[in-house]
Amino acid sequence: MYSFKNDYSEGAHPRILNALFESNLVQEDGYGEDRFTLEAKELIKQKLSNSNVDIHLLSGGTQTNLTAISAFLRPHEAAISVSTGHIFTHETGAIEATGHKIISVEGENGKLTVEHVKKVLESHPDEHMVKPKLVYISNSTEIGTIYQKEELIQLRQLCDEEKLILFMDGARLGSALCSSECDLKLSDLPSLLDAFYIGGTKNGALLGEALVICNDALKEDFRFHMKQKGALLAKGRLLGIQFRELFKDDLYFDLAIHANSMAEKLRDEISKAGFSFLTHSPSNQVFPIFPNAFIEKLQQKYAFHLWEKIDNDSSAIRLVTSWATKEDEVLAFIEDVKKGF
Amino acid sequence: MYSFKNDYSEGAHPRILNALFESNLVQEDGYGEDRFTLEAKELIKQKLSNSNVDIHLLSGGTQTNLTAISAFLRPHEAAISVSTGHIFTHETGAIEATGHKIISVEGENGKLTVEHVKKVLESHPDEHMVKPKLVYISNSTEIGTIYQKEELIQLRQLCDEEKLILFMDGARLGSALCSSECDLKLSDLPSLLDAFYIGGTKNGALLGEALVICNDALKEDFRFHMKQKGALLAKGRLLGIQFRELFKDDLYFDLAIHANSMAEKLRDEISKAGFSFLTHSPSNQVFPIFPNAFIEKLQQKYAFHLWEKIDNDSSAIRLVTSWATKEDEVLAFIEDVKKGF
Amino acid sequence: MYSFKNDYSEGAHPRILNALFESNLVQEDGYGEDRFTLEAKELIKQKLSNSNVDIHLLSGGTQTNLTAISAFLRPHEAAISVSTGHIFTHETGAIEATGHKIISVEGENGKLTVEHVKKVLESHPDEHMVKPKLVYISNSTEIGTIYQKEELIQLRQLCDEEKLILFMDGARLGSALCSSECDLKLSDLPSLLDAFYIGGTKNGALLGEALVICNDALKEDFRFHMKQKGALLAKGRLLGIQFRELFKDDLYFDLAIHANSMAEKLRDEISKAGFSFLTHSPSNQVFPIFPNAFIEKLQQKYAFHLWEKIDNDSSAIRLVTSWATKEDEVLAFIEDVKKGF
Amino acid sequence: MYSFKNDYSEGAHPRILNALFESNLVQEDGYGEDRFTLEAKELIKQKLSNSNVDIHLLSGGTQTNLTAISAFLRPHEAAISVSTGHIFTHETGAIEATGHKIISVEGENGKLTVEHVKKVLESHPDEHMVKPKLVYISNSTEIGTIYQKEELIQLRQLCDEEKLILFMDGARLGSALCSSECDLKLSDLPSLLDAFYIGGTKNGALLGEALVICNDALKEDFRFHMKQKGALLAKGRLLGIQFRELFKDDLYFDLAIHANSMAEKLRDEISKAGFSFLTHSPSNQVFPIFPNAFIEKLQQKYAFHLWEKIDNDSSAIRLVTSWATKEDEVLAFIEDVKKGF
Repeated sequence: MYSFKNDYSEGAHPRILNALFESNLVQEDGYGEDRFTLEAKELIKQKLSNSNVDIHLLSGGTQTNLTAISAFLRPHEAAISVSTGHIFTHETGAIEATGHKIISVEGENGKLTVEHVKKVLESHPDEHMVKPKLVYISNSTEIGTIYQKEELIQLRQLCDEEKLILFMDGARLGSALCSSECDLKLSDLPSLLDAFYIGGTKNGALLGEALVICNDALKEDFRFHMKQKGALLAKGRLLGIQFRELFKDDLYFDLAIHANSMAEKLRDEISKAGFSFLTHSPSNQVFPIFPNAFIEKLQQKYAFHLWEKIDNDSSAIRLVTSWATKEDEVLAFIEDVKKGF
Repeated sequence: MYSFKNDYSEGAHPRILNALFESNLVQEDGYGEDRFTLEAKELIKQKLSNSNVDIHLLSGGTQTNLTAISAFLRPHEAAISVSTGHIFTHETGAIEATGHKIISVEGENGKLTVEHVKKVLESHPDEHMVKPKLVYISNSTEIGTIYQKEELIQLRQLCDEEKLILFMDGARLGSALCSSECDLKLSDLPSLLDAFYIGGTKNGALLGEALVICNDALKEDFRFHMKQKGALLAKGRLLGIQFRELFKDDLYFDLAIHANSMAEKLRDEISKAGFSFLTHSPSNQVFPIFPNAFIEKLQQKYAFHLWEKIDNDSSAIRLVTSWATKEDEVLAFIEDVKKGF
Repeated sequence: MYSFKNDYSEGAHPRILNALFESNLVQEDGYGEDRFTLEAKELIKQKLSNSNVDIHLLSGGTQTNLTAISAFLRPHEAAISVSTGHIFTHETGAIEATGHKIISVEGENGKLTVEHVKKVLESHPDEHMVKPKLVYISNSTEIGTIYQKEELIQLRQLCDEEKLILFMDGARLGSALCSSECDLKLSDLPSLLDAFYIGGTKNGALLGEALVICNDALKEDFRFHMKQKGALLAKGRLLGIQFRELFKDDLYFDLAIHANSMAEKLRDEISKAGFSFLTHSPSNQVFPIFPNAFIEKLQQKYAFHLWEKIDNDSSAIRLVTSWATKEDEVLAFIEDVKKGF
Repeated sequence: MYSFKNDYSEGAHPRILNALFESNLVQEDGYGEDRFTLEAKELIKQKLSNSNVDIHLLSGGTQTNLTAISAFLRPHEAAISVSTGHIFTHETGAIEATGHKIISVEGENGKLTVEHVKKVLESHPDEHMVKPKLVYISNSTEIGTIYQKEELIQLRQLCDEEKLILFMDGARLGSALCSSECDLKLSDLPSLLDAFYIGGTKNGALLGEALVICNDALKEDFRFHMKQKGALLAKGRLLGIQFRELFKDDLYFDLAIHANSMAEKLRDEISKAGFSFLTHSPSNQVFPIFPNAFIEKLQQKYAFHLWEKIDNDSSAIRLVTSWATKEDEVLAFIEDVKKGF
């Protein structure tokens, strides 16, 4: 049975494992002060065309979100997120566990707009309510949609006016930036965001997210927060080696491009076969709507998530592709869709 | 320059890297529900001769301590630790950040005794003070000493009488259990402790600690706590593969034995050369006391931590060995000590 | 200008001030161990016809909610509340600040039903989400509605089946129980709820809420939580004396009856004058809908909260009555409504 | 039996109760926005000769400490306190419950010196430890000692150099300032401290502490923190009326002077009778050392705390005086001491 369940079903890209092998017996300092980590940070800064950011390597998305957000906010300040946002629904209250409320809004195609944020500000006028302070967005979103440059520019402008922090969860940033519909470049991000992270776990690494802090005011003492939250790995080299490999050339982007092209193939052919989708998602997640009986048949050959009931007869499923997705399996899946099994 | 700074200066034991390679493209479920993790847990239970424990794999020591302790305690309950305890001094207030006070006592050779704990209980009589609830011990301790079976039996008895939780930080458990002076076996631990962890990071893994929860009352919903604290890796297989390799035969113990034998060599020969030690540490940490001038010379060839000023002329340094420590380098160090350089 | 803004605009009922005077120089132990507090607890237990509850006196509603809920829940557990619930909107994230998410649902007339709770449970299946554990209801609700006995019985049953904690915020419990439409008695509550509080601040006291813990499993060490949250007053007598006075006869209920009768008069006459209401609220809060121009006129003579915009021409306002509300002012207000000013 | 157990055994000074009576039916806004509170703040600013401070009225000492300290610190920052400090020992981990470690040092006569603080800074060099940020002192201290102006000037200087926050717990500030040995005036404090509070509960009020925030950087949004911690009383007037009464003339100081003079009488006469003291405490707490047999006799007529065992035959007890302490009872106690009963 082949799995389209997620983009972390396999290990790491072979080049990453090779890099671990080659560096294995070199002695280095712990806690992210090794030279692999330092080199990785340098390489990422080059790709960002920005040397004025602080970069920290953490193990996973939830850990990065909770460490960053709790470091950035004072106790009475809250994050704003769409109701499908990962921090709002799928992190077991990790942000609240650090003391902060998340104000959720419905959103639009999984995204936050200036209007959503303004409405939240208007409805939080005084000290009897939390103070909205951090705008949390994901790119790509939980439902595979992506932000356009203009949308970020507008959010940035509002955040400047209202002294808000704009934070981007980039667990699937590679796929978003490499989307055929994306007009953003990695190097655009530092001037648009206060902080964001470049997801490694879902794009070829064993684990690892590179948090980029752009706003000077948020940089101070960040390693204290990492240590306090259990996010400072003794063998920090494990993260450094991986990100060095991903960014020493264009591996990071190449992997995302592969994932996207596999998703695009699924999207195009499923569409041609006459099926529609829950959402327009030009990244590595596809949400086709199939008859329930057909879904049951597919489940005998493929693993994937049942996403949402559409009506009594049909449901949306989620197909996720990754750097490791095999084209043969994609083609086989398409074949099965075409022939209705 | 060769480093005796710590036991996490290198990558992983080659067998572990090989295991990652071999399993790399196998598709598995995320979040520790892969079969490698399941197998690893089974293997550890066999080594523990106990199938009634819950095992969870986490990334690092601080993360394990904070996730476990915050899951086990109610808000008003506190941990008791020696003042050299890792949670008390070197985790940036990680436990306090989850809301719990740590009550520190001086300890004896880095260890807690029944008398220490009793004294804490006596001095915390009512609701104006926190309620001491969890006894935190490390084995080996921060200064390389180890617990004997009888000491644990006595602590266990007191904890039973006083309804306390006995928790062992096992970041260096391998070295402790393989010490020539240790009369404890791994399989003794489940009946003596409410929970403990088996450290992987400092004994051959890239990262990873195996938390063992023995007390049924502490088991419920533990994965919720892991997720909330950012400790549930998407590619949990990374931890599972490593612990499977470490425990599918005696690799875990073999690595610790090597580390200990390197330390023993250092201890014996430094002693023969006429130097004394800060502490009697029959594990993989050695704390010789050298003249300051001699330390300066050593620092030109070796990396290690300056541990404690003894008097105006001499200081204790810390030498740590590991699975990766090269015998040649140990012999060279000894040679340098003998000839006073 | 006369104020209908809230039920805490004045000081305390004169009998309470007298009781403070009379007891003033009696020496008593601190922290709620004085005899006034002990007597107050006894008197409340008698009114509850239940001697098996634990009672604690706290200063205010937010303090009581945060102390109780954080004491009752484990870190990964969440509260369920309607989106108008006080803890969700008007306590500045007090519950989240203790680490717990509040799951909000739209509710129905400000109330939670069995269906709402079931839906939350269904949508929280695993450890990637918080675990819904405590059902938070207010009686009367934020919009003046009240729970009927049958509604509580059904919630109780569901909570028993699903091992949930049913907690009632009783900041305005007096008004709810004394409502002409209420079929609940104070003595019904201990068997229906795990915990609740009897609000004093909004019913004649200077300050004070009496938390009643009915479920044995929630009683242990509660005073530790109070002290930790700053809720254990040194001069706990201040709370004891007030609740003793409120419950030594029927003063508590008499005050609520007065508040309700003033509200009823407002409701009846405003209705007769042809206006409708935002909600059917048979307690001490009334939400008439008036033309905006008329509201502006009223604001010249009366203070009240503008509650909600209805359409471009009209809005709902909130009128709150209390033990101290003067009938003359109510009649004057009605007169003004009748003559349209 | 007459009690010298503490300074909160009685209610409030009669003038305060009268003020409550007189203002009782005046309608005012809630949550500390009433005119009594505004007037009280003005009066205190006048006594401080400083109009550039922010003043907030809270209910009790623990509540004030936890609200202020958690508002002032970022998550990784810690407070420094002597080991007898109230926040370290007698607040049930209230500060830790907000996420912050307290670093304790032995202290000297219950006080912190520049040397203590420097030592803490030196031993906290990096991100593996918490960052010491707030210096917590009490005046008078838990053992009745007081700070001299020069001591505060030195601490202030160090805090300026090291960017530390200097916070004074003033639960017994009245007694400290009115001590015959004190060279500090209330108006000296704003330039020496970042924040402090003026204790009302232990000096004639029913409850209440006036927090004074002097450092502009700590002022922002403080009312949010109060609300979140349950410290914003609905009937904030209760605090305002009391502090208005205490500071509209010199009542606050007169009450402290009475308490001190009663303590002084005890000290002088017990000393003349040949007994020594645990500590030199020129405030409203006295710690005489008596033979155990004599203490048992005293306990038949007087209530007080047994403070500390001195040797097998004798112990120190604590006698606390207050605004309400009756001279007759002091004289009777002295008589009993003189005649050895």
